[in-house]
Amino acid sequence: MAKFTIPAYGASGSLIGGKHLEAMEIERNTPINDEVLIQILYCGVCHSDLHQVHNDWKNTIYPCVPGHEIVGRIIETGPNTTRFSKGDIVGVGCMVDSCKSCASCEHGEEQYCLGPVGPTMTYNGYFKPDGSEYNTFGGYSTHITVQESFVLDIPKNLPVASIAPILCAGVTTYSPLKRANINQGDKVAIIGIGGLGHMAVKIAKAMGANVTAITSREEKRQAANELGADSVLVYEDEDDLKNYENAFKFMLCTIPYPFDINPYICLLQPHGSLITVGLLGPYKKPANNMELAKMNRTIGGSLIGSIAETQEVLDFCSEHRITPDVEMIEMKDINNAFEMLKDEEVRFRYVIDMESLKPDPAGKAS
Amino acid sequence: MAKFTIPAYGASGSLIGGKHLEAMEIERNTPINDEVLIQILYCGVCHSDLHQVHNDWKNTIYPCVPGHEIVGRIIETGPNTTRFSKGDIVGVGCMVDSCKSCASCEHGEEQYCLGPVGPTMTYNGYFKPDGSEYNTFGGYSTHITVQESFVLDIPKNLPVASIAPILCAGVTTYSPLKRANINQGDKVAIIGIGGLGHMAVKIAKAMGANVTAITSREEKRQAANELGADSVLVYEDEDDLKNYENAFKFMLCTIPYPFDINPYICLLQPHGSLITVGLLGPYKKPANNMELAKMNRTIGGSLIGSIAETQEVLDFCSEHRITPDVEMIEMKDINNAFEMLKDEEVRFRYVIDMESLKPDPAGKAS
Repeated sequence: MAKFTIPAYGASGSLIGGKHLEAMEIERNTPINDEVLIQILYCGVCHSDLHQVHNDWKNTIYPCVPGHEIVGRIIETGPNTTRFSKGDIVGVGCMVDSCKSCASCEHGEEQYCLGPVGPTMTYNGYFKPDGSEYNTFGGYSTHITVQESFVLDIPKNLPVASIAPILCAGVTTYSPLKRANINQGDKVAIIGIGGLGHMAVKIAKAMGANVTAITSREEKRQAANELGADSVLVYEDEDDLKNYENAFKFMLCTIPYPFDINPYICLLQPHGSLITVGLLGPYKKPANNMELAKMNRTIGGSLIGSIAETQEVLDFCSEHRITPDVEMIEMKDINNAFEMLKDEEVRFRYVIDMESLKPDPAGKAS
Repeated sequence: MAKFTIPAYGASGSLIGGKHLEAMEIERNTPINDEVLIQILYCGVCHSDLHQVHNDWKNTIYPCVPGHEIVGRIIETGPNTTRFSKGDIVGVGCMVDSCKSCASCEHGEEQYCLGPVGPTMTYNGYFKPDGSEYNTFGGYSTHITVQESFVLDIPKNLPVASIAPILCAGVTTYSPLKRANINQGDKVAIIGIGGLGHMAVKIAKAMGANVTAITSREEKRQAANELGADSVLVYEDEDDLKNYENAFKFMLCTIPYPFDINPYICLLQPHGSLITVGLLGPYKKPANNMELAKMNRTIGGSLIGSIAETQEVLDFCSEHRITPDVEMIEMKDINNAFEMLKDEEVRFRYVIDMESLKPDPAGKAS
């Protein structure tokens, strides 16, 4: 399999202690079998990118090249490809492989792959399904080679420069919202109005929900209204929640750090459910089963979405004319963007214009 | 409304500090409107009785006369009764009233009543639906007066002396098992093989599940097999759980005190759910959302069941010939029974033969 070198941005070691993402070179292979080679046009900046390069999940292998909201153009196809041709505009989301034979994979739910190593993630995928060691590099780079069954069609009526966040922020919120079986007018709360939350508000509205945006920041009130929220709850202390007791059929929490879930549990209707997306580790306090049991409430988590759901959410956004709100940046601005993301200053998702990442004349990425 | 005095057993104050349930007298009213007066034949002893008399939920009002697994004979009917006649063998479960007008009550789910004071419980129901203060006395007594819409039909093919536990232990486990939509062969775990757990094993088996009983006590292994469990997992440390990772579609936890839920979460299949019955307060440790999210698992609670479900589980037990395993005791043995219950020594439910509670010749209950 032929290899070639491309420019990328990544972390050579843990960023704790002030180190930064830096220009580096990585290898890709020319497409074999049913793989396609994609020239990356845009890549979204996800909070997971930050977690991974900081080794928050204690599983990062370096060098780490993040990026799993990838939109690009196919420039070469393997001999056995059937779905795509050169020139197609396509997407790559959070996964690039899975075991394909477990119960989850057979049900088209690669994200819950029960194979020996789970799904292979687009970056920091450090085992292949056969168990051999590996390290996948993500979309902070100029090219990526992916088997076509993990590549998404990009609907033609969506603006190419803005849609990358649908590939993670979109599907991560769409998947649990879809499972919640939302009917017209059902009361739904979206907790945390950032990259994921802003997509969740748009998607839940398009599903017909009556949406309450819950944020801890007064300055997000207007933005949440503009996203389409029917009401906005600025939650500073528990008194702010009193009027919402038993209010919501479904709550989707996008807070990207451990928090106390108990004040939110009380806002669920009988049989209501609160799903937290994001791999937070333990909540800040134990959930009170008294509050869960007395209204048959449930809490749980959800991880991204399947490849089929990723296609579904792209098509759903196409149908409902939903576009992520993005701020375009250049690759060299990524360290600043990470700082802004940490401080929740982005409205609502950074997308890297990959035109800005080119080998410099000396052959080194700039 | 005429009142009369009957013998009962109750706590005059908190039992903490070695005090005991004692013989006392309470008042009942003759039936008005659609009420029926029931002579109590049998009353089950539930772990909730213990929690309530010990004021574990910080809401006990004394005197407290427990008992919400009541089977008896109607001896008098109010002028507007339509369902029952004198001589009928009937049951009373955990509730005797609710607001009847909230969304939950309108859906026939009185246990999740959203009225100002929630449902009125059979004992320690300390508010009426109109908000006025009150104190209901339960089945550790010779008679009870209840509106007929909260009274259950007892199927004639069930043994009267043994069925009382269906009215709480039965419905409390049936309700979440039914919501779990169990299909033939689905893997279900029942955690804790006591009063509730033993009913859960029988009911889940009758629903077609492949049932694993999880207990911390080796000496319950044989009993769990005899109850019908397909397999028994004696859980002493986390190594015992390793073979069961991702195994269960549904887990029902009947442990009656706060515990660490995290080791159990990992045993759930993708999309699996773990429901804890019992008002435990906070779990021992915060749930790890990493484990919830990575397989879209949920945890939650469930509270008893509706009146309709209580009738359903009675009929279900009738159809499937399910009878609780009971040990019959006399009323005066209740303090000893509470001790045994605390030490998990009962197999599996005490039932009080109310013949044993009679006014003594001096007019005082013995």
